[in-house]
Amino acid sequence: MAEVLKEGKDRKILVAIDEGEESMYALSWALKNVVTSANSKDTIVLLYSKPSRVMYTTLDDTHNLFSADVVATMEKHRNDVAVSVTEKAMKICKDLCDDVKVERRVGDGDPREVIYEMVTKIGADVLVMGTHGYGLIKRTFLGSVSDYCAHKVKCPVLIVKRS
Amino acid sequence: MAEVLKEGKDRKILVAIDEGEESMYALSWALKNVVTSANSKDTIVLLYSKPSRVMYTTLDDTHNLFSADVVATMEKHRNDVAVSVTEKAMKICKDLCDDVKVERRVGDGDPREVIYEMVTKIGADVLVMGTHGYGLIKRTFLGSVSDYCAHKVKCPVLIVKRS
Repeated sequence: MAEVLKEGKDRKILVAIDEGEESMYALSWALKNVVTSANSKDTIVLLYSKPSRVMYTTLDDTHNLFSADVVATMEKHRNDVAVSVTEKAMKICKDLCDDVKVERRVGDGDPREVIYEMVTKIGADVLVMGTHGYGLIKRTFLGSVSDYCAHKVKCPVLIVKRS
Repeated sequence: MAEVLKEGKDRKILVAIDEGEESMYALSWALKNVVTSANSKDTIVLLYSKPSRVMYTTLDDTHNLFSADVVATMEKHRNDVAVSVTEKAMKICKDLCDDVKVERRVGDGDPREVIYEMVTKIGADVLVMGTHGYGLIKRTFLGSVSDYCAHKVKCPVLIVKRS
């Protein structure tokens, strides 16, 4: 049994999830290889970052923002995606380690900052993430989320690629 | 119990070690949090990369290399350090998970390539490493070993910082 069980330490395992399959693979790998589901002291914290709202003011000659209806529709979509992604991750946790404690957190904005802040806020023991959770354009714009986190967060970082 | 135990999969956990304390901390963390010492199927593979020989030909006006004695002395020192570092890591493994299988490998040259090649050669299930195992000058020259490995190797990479 892992030493941590002998120490009886409660571990908080923060897993950054997104719409991509790779983050779900990273979650599965961590559940199979890091989480000891016989150890009820582990807590998986699933973190999803909702992308920031996009206001195409530069495409809006009148410089008006979208109508309230459009904004409400966009917001509903963002929330629906957040629910869908977290529900999918919750099912993976239940299927692989049905007795592990799981918490869901949803952030808003740049995933790099959302993840960094959550690691600090909850005092994560380890951060688990994939590497290609964001499309090429988003990665180019954001920079690599995993690179940023691997450098900035203080806790161990487990980067799982889908081979 | 972790799924891997149910699956009965033999895991090869490659841990890159060096003279720095951080790599020993990374090893300890992995032993406490990833290795299930009750699972005799885990194998820890300790990998140390001997730094390349340095021939100061540019400082040698005669363009002669060092004498055979000096080269032999340098080589002995490199080997002594390799033994010292691997012995230290072996003791940590025994102290934390005395029933886990441990193998020692020693490479020669650029640690980035040595680590990458060993991950592929042994089919590592996960690569464990610290982030600051090399001094500023070496890092500047080599680039970050952990950055390189995190991008290039195909298996999951666990980067452990000494907090």
